Amino acid sequence: MDLLNEKFLRLGVDHAPGQQTLHETEELQLIGECLPGKSVDFSHGDVNAFEPIPGTLDEFIKGVHCGGEQAYTEYKGRGIVRKSVSEKLSAFTNTSISADTQLIITPGTQGALFLAMGSLIDRGDKVAIVEPDYFANRKIVHFLNGEIIPVALNYLESDKRAGLDLTQLEEAFKDGVKVFLFSNPNNPTGVIYSPDEIRTIAQLAKKYDVAVVVDQLYARQIFDGRMYTHLCAQDHLPDNLITIIGPSKTESLSGYRVGVAFGSQTIISRMEKLQAIVSLRAGGYSQAVLASWFREPQGWLKDRVESHQSIRDDLVALFRNMEGVKVRKTEAGSYLFVGIPELTISLGDFVKILRLQANVTVTPGTEFGPQFTKHFRINFSQDHHAAVEAIKRTIQIIERYRK
Amino acid sequence: MDLLNEKFLRLGVDHAPGQQTLHETEELQLIGECLPGKSVDFSHGDVNAFEPIPGTLDEFIKGVHCGGEQAYTEYKGRGIVRKSVSEKLSAFTNTSISADTQLIITPGTQGALFLAMGSLIDRGDKVAIVEPDYFANRKIVHFLNGEIIPVALNYLESDKRAGLDLTQLEEAFKDGVKVFLFSNPNNPTGVIYSPDEIRTIAQLAKKYDVAVVVDQLYARQIFDGRMYTHLCAQDHLPDNLITIIGPSKTESLSGYRVGVAFGSQTIISRMEKLQAIVSLRAGGYSQAVLASWFREPQGWLKDRVESHQSIRDDLVALFRNMEGVKVRKTEAGSYLFVGIPELTISLGDFVKILRLQANVTVTPGTEFGPQFTKHFRINFSQDHHAAVEAIKRTIQIIERYRK
Repeated sequence: MDLLNEKFLRLGVDHAPGQQTLHETEELQLIGECLPGKSVDFSHGDVNAFEPIPGTLDEFIKGVHCGGEQAYTEYKGRGIVRKSVSEKLSAFTNTSISADTQLIITPGTQGALFLAMGSLIDRGDKVAIVEPDYFANRKIVHFLNGEIIPVALNYLESDKRAGLDLTQLEEAFKDGVKVFLFSNPNNPTGVIYSPDEIRTIAQLAKKYDVAVVVDQLYARQIFDGRMYTHLCAQDHLPDNLITIIGPSKTESLSGYRVGVAFGSQTIISRMEKLQAIVSLRAGGYSQAVLASWFREPQGWLKDRVESHQSIRDDLVALFRNMEGVKVRKTEAGSYLFVGIPELTISLGDFVKILRLQANVTVTPGTEFGPQFTKHFRINFSQDHHAAVEAIKRTIQIIERYRK
Repeated sequence: MDLLNEKFLRLGVDHAPGQQTLHETEELQLIGECLPGKSVDFSHGDVNAFEPIPGTLDEFIKGVHCGGEQAYTEYKGRGIVRKSVSEKLSAFTNTSISADTQLIITPGTQGALFLAMGSLIDRGDKVAIVEPDYFANRKIVHFLNGEIIPVALNYLESDKRAGLDLTQLEEAFKDGVKVFLFSNPNNPTGVIYSPDEIRTIAQLAKKYDVAVVVDQLYARQIFDGRMYTHLCAQDHLPDNLITIIGPSKTESLSGYRVGVAFGSQTIISRMEKLQAIVSLRAGGYSQAVLASWFREPQGWLKDRVESHQSIRDDLVALFRNMEGVKVRKTEAGSYLFVGIPELTISLGDFVKILRLQANVTVTPGTEFGPQFTKHFRINFSQDHHAAVEAIKRTIQIIERYRK
């Protein structure tokens, strides 16, 4: 069991969002007093500040009253739910998705991600992973005994494109990569891939026969009227493409645990087989809440986007006012990836001290790539005023411990 | 991707419960007319006939109104939920389970099973699997690239014990098996392992350093006042033991997708890491319904057990009245495993014809072990009258096609 032990040592969860209650704080060298203020947990969105789509709970209750048909759906999700979701997502992406063969309802987009990767790779397979990108991407590859080939996202280079190193990507593909997995908008930086970047990814994947999994979880929360390019709507597509999306973030339905994957029939069919042994199905009653998705009250999504954009503006202004801090303004979603100046303490200790002295929780940059030792991520889907105050305290703490 | 393709070919779902809507029925050689009657799907329980614990939906709604704390729990489940569940399960099993380190809330017991096995085995590891036993057990081992070592359950031999071939089990353990996975009560036969069998399993596992995963999903629905022996309550235990249980069956909460695993701290900690990348957590709001579990209204469980026992008696009497049918009376749970006489058609065709001509869905025996080609499983948690009528039609169909 030694190899297995090693594998699980690499699958740490201690610094992952939501796990911070368990940290030890005994041996920290503290400077100064605690800064009073309302506790803000930037490791995930606050569904009390931004509530689920109105009427969601009613859809759930209707689902419960449906009884057996809603409780025991096909593994890939109830037929009428898949039909309605495939219509909405076909319209959203300007493609045509078959409800029968090209779509699966999963327990959150996390479930979709695991099923997609479990259906595409096996021991020793090479997987191209963007750095920085969502922390679970690398962990899933570890668990499945794949090999990570990192590809840089130079997100600070320009504001015209996300900054994916396309030369490095092609080298990786040439080198035998089987799957390219990335999030767009990127988590943690909130940048959107340009039309040119997306087109090139599609062409390279087709040329080198690489399967692509693209996590579009935040694709509905776009700021400043920017353009968003759906990879699945390109003319030239790789044979195996899976797109992942769900209502957990912008729509605040994370507590219901439903997500969607759509794309290549072969892979969707494998994902269904895998879902049968991983969790059977997305919670039957929860599937019913997808009825409210993409059918929000008029103006609801616009309001939500504007509120987040306004929080973003305030936080970015605060950070840009501080010497040595590097941020790129979020283009979509509600993450901000903050590069901080050199500190006298480690990143791990900084995160603990910030929580202890300022009541602020952030996610360390190293979760998104080993080199991000002077970075943290915040999810600014929070009460506006509390978020601003919390970032002011964060800046004070950085000042206290900077070199 | 060829090896992967082969792997997924073995992970079929077409004959699994709930997937039957997709079968082709074109080339069947039909004898006689259709038998009219209310459609009964014996592949899973009918939650319209046996409804969820009263008050469950209210607990869910309370969970939603809790907001963020209930939506975003720790990966292993919300602290107060784990505490209450660990107290209830400690009392039920007469053991002491730490809510902090020895228990995890999962998306159904299926989720628990996958996480436990994913935490215990890797490519090439040998896993002892009972035949017959729950179909997903073998599929999980396939997916994880383990090797199955079958151990026979001679369930028709005696009604004093389940019938596990303990000599074969010890041989398998000697041969280097890393994990022994089994369900008690057994799915599909509904037999309970005797105290002596459980004690021997524990002792052998300890002696040969084998980890044990025991799926006790139906351990609360015991008929005829029989004794049930909890492996986790034995004096001599293997170092790594995981017990799985949940409210999906007897309590009809399957639509909420919550289950529980408890046991060895090392394995529970791995399961939490794995859950973080497989599905993040059991649905936050759904975790709240565990409040109603083990706190059912007075007499509720007794009534439920008696109703099922009474259906069992009627169905067993019908089957025993037919020549060539072999059944052992269910001792716990709501499955009956039926051995049928030689037919002129294959088992696969029989299952399709039964559905087509009699409106009755059953699960083919081959899902529970390759040798069970003259068997099917029914879940008799159904409307009593409809179930009796459906079995009468089933018997007519067997008569039509018997050799």
